[in-house]
Amino acid sequence: MSVTQVEVGVGRLAALLHELPAAGVFVVADERAAAAHPAIGAAVDARTSFVVPSGEEHKTWATAEALLLALDAAGIDRDGLVLGVGGGVTTDLAGFAASLHRRGVGWIAAPTTVVGAVDAALGGKTAVNLGGGKNTVGTFHEPLRVVADPSTLTTLDPRHVRAGLAEVLKTALIAGGEAWDSVLALDLAFDLDDAWTDATVADFGAIIERCLATKLDLVTRDLHDVGPRRTLNLGHTFGHAFEALALPELLHGEAVALGLICAARAANNVSLETTIRERLKAWQLPLSPPPPARDVDALLTEMLRDKKRAGGQHTLIVPHAPGDVRVEEGVKETRIRKALAAVLEG
Amino acid sequence: MSVTQVEVGVGRLAALLHELPAAGVFVVADERAAAAHPAIGAAVDARTSFVVPSGEEHKTWATAEALLLALDAAGIDRDGLVLGVGGGVTTDLAGFAASLHRRGVGWIAAPTTVVGAVDAALGGKTAVNLGGGKNTVGTFHEPLRVVADPSTLTTLDPRHVRAGLAEVLKTALIAGGEAWDSVLALDLAFDLDDAWTDATVADFGAIIERCLATKLDLVTRDLHDVGPRRTLNLGHTFGHAFEALALPELLHGEAVALGLICAARAANNVSLETTIRERLKAWQLPLSPPPPARDVDALLTEMLRDKKRAGGQHTLIVPHAPGDVRVEEGVKETRIRKALAAVLEG
Repeated sequence: MSVTQVEVGVGRLAALLHELPAAGVFVVADERAAAAHPAIGAAVDARTSFVVPSGEEHKTWATAEALLLALDAAGIDRDGLVLGVGGGVTTDLAGFAASLHRRGVGWIAAPTTVVGAVDAALGGKTAVNLGGGKNTVGTFHEPLRVVADPSTLTTLDPRHVRAGLAEVLKTALIAGGEAWDSVLALDLAFDLDDAWTDATVADFGAIIERCLATKLDLVTRDLHDVGPRRTLNLGHTFGHAFEALALPELLHGEAVALGLICAARAANNVSLETTIRERLKAWQLPLSPPPPARDVDALLTEMLRDKKRAGGQHTLIVPHAPGDVRVEEGVKETRIRKALAAVLEG
Repeated sequence: MSVTQVEVGVGRLAALLHELPAAGVFVVADERAAAAHPAIGAAVDARTSFVVPSGEEHKTWATAEALLLALDAAGIDRDGLVLGVGGGVTTDLAGFAASLHRRGVGWIAAPTTVVGAVDAALGGKTAVNLGGGKNTVGTFHEPLRVVADPSTLTTLDPRHVRAGLAEVLKTALIAGGEAWDSVLALDLAFDLDDAWTDATVADFGAIIERCLATKLDLVTRDLHDVGPRRTLNLGHTFGHAFEALALPELLHGEAVALGLICAARAANNVSLETTIRERLKAWQLPLSPPPPARDVDALLTEMLRDKKRAGGQHTLIVPHAPGDVRVEEGVKETRIRKALAAVLEG
């Protein structure tokens, strides 16, 4: 069983901040989120806290050290609590520090981005980047609660919202059935560059709830990521390589979008690849990587260092069809080269 | 259940090094142990490895980073293995890095010191020191095996052997009964400054086996250190404070020796305190701390930051009698001041 209680809804973050005790709670907040949302900014000011500079380049061993020193200086005990408020960078860091401080204290994840809400905050995979690789160092430490308030999404850069939709597509592809159909039928009923309406916020609330249900099921069955949970890496073995070579030009979700196209190519499923392309295009996501991430050999080298490889062989998550996503071991390099061509050709 | 298989015996380390596969094993070795034992030095040279400079002052966040970078550079996979060979500093660091690399790989502890063999290597409490406190940051990550070869002790500085006997005394005090009687009756049959005989090595093998059995029982019942395992902190709440203030003058075991006297005083058990004093004196262990660690207020401040304190109250492990060691919550500061006087008076 997962220990995590999932709560999705408008107003949930404000309620959480209100109900937490005054003492023994340490807030780890994303810099941008703290500036954009008065309630988060007020929590940072009122409590012992640490502000994480925005951006994947700050998810480092050095930032984790600074955060752990702040937790120590704040006198957070073994029965203390860490609250991570922000995107995947912030919740990964908050969870990582919570798992190490006094050999582990409880934590709550309050995602404020689409990627964070539909994917990163849930599941207990905490990490920082070290040695040039992504998430090379980390722990499994499930949050006690994931509190996703879709109203926090309304201040995001539209590009970040779009990037998050790649993770939504990934999760729906794993779930298949109604979840897949609903994402394909999704009429977001708004231009992401315009102001958000209550209806759009509600739409995102529904998307988040559905994605978290799919993920919670996989995490409950396989916390340590050795069985069915590995399907959640769909698009990520490729994606991490694009991301590593093109940082900071490519957002995580954008890299995953490219990875999904490659994964469909690896499955030899032409109609699925076409459907994915069309969906990503409609959401204005990239269909090919920027120049620094167009070198096949460099991409292969990055994939080889990826932690999803075990025992010296490539492991790939292959979407044969919606609802039929498989972990395939012993994949040959030629097949990966062909899959990468899906976004490099033309 | 503990996942750890415990093996004690002369020749066990050489056998372990011989049986490990050539690839996928990363050796973390204490600098002194690698220099003193040709088999360890050869393993460092033949395999991917990292040498830990000797001394508690190297058990840091920075050393952990260097070790994790080396594990990454060596391409150790999720199915790789870390072997830690050395004292508590080395096995704490090796276990810590193993718990974080790729979110956790297996590890084996091969202790080469008395403290390491009877205490530090077993139980999965990994850590580094950060922010001035001891073991402020760490994980629970049990080794797959603890391989304790008493022949590795023969090259130790006698002072380090004596310091380790304080942990032996602590463990016997927790176990009580025959374990306690046998430690009191212990005739080590040698002057620690002389050469070791086979009989002495065998004596230490028996001591280590007995201590590890006591500890394994507690760890099996309470891995996460929230129940009976906490009795293993006997002497350590005081000891960490002495150690923090007197580093590097005081060895860990010497600090624990002082802590045991204080703990007996806190129990108001005069005859037990006398017995402990006599035993420590016979082993030439200190009965009072060096000047930097004689300031009661500074010691109290250090104890307040100790992680054994929860919820703002002092928690103390109190030895009412051999075999009757209790965790006592809500201990008042005046009682701790009186206990500290046991080693500061006169």
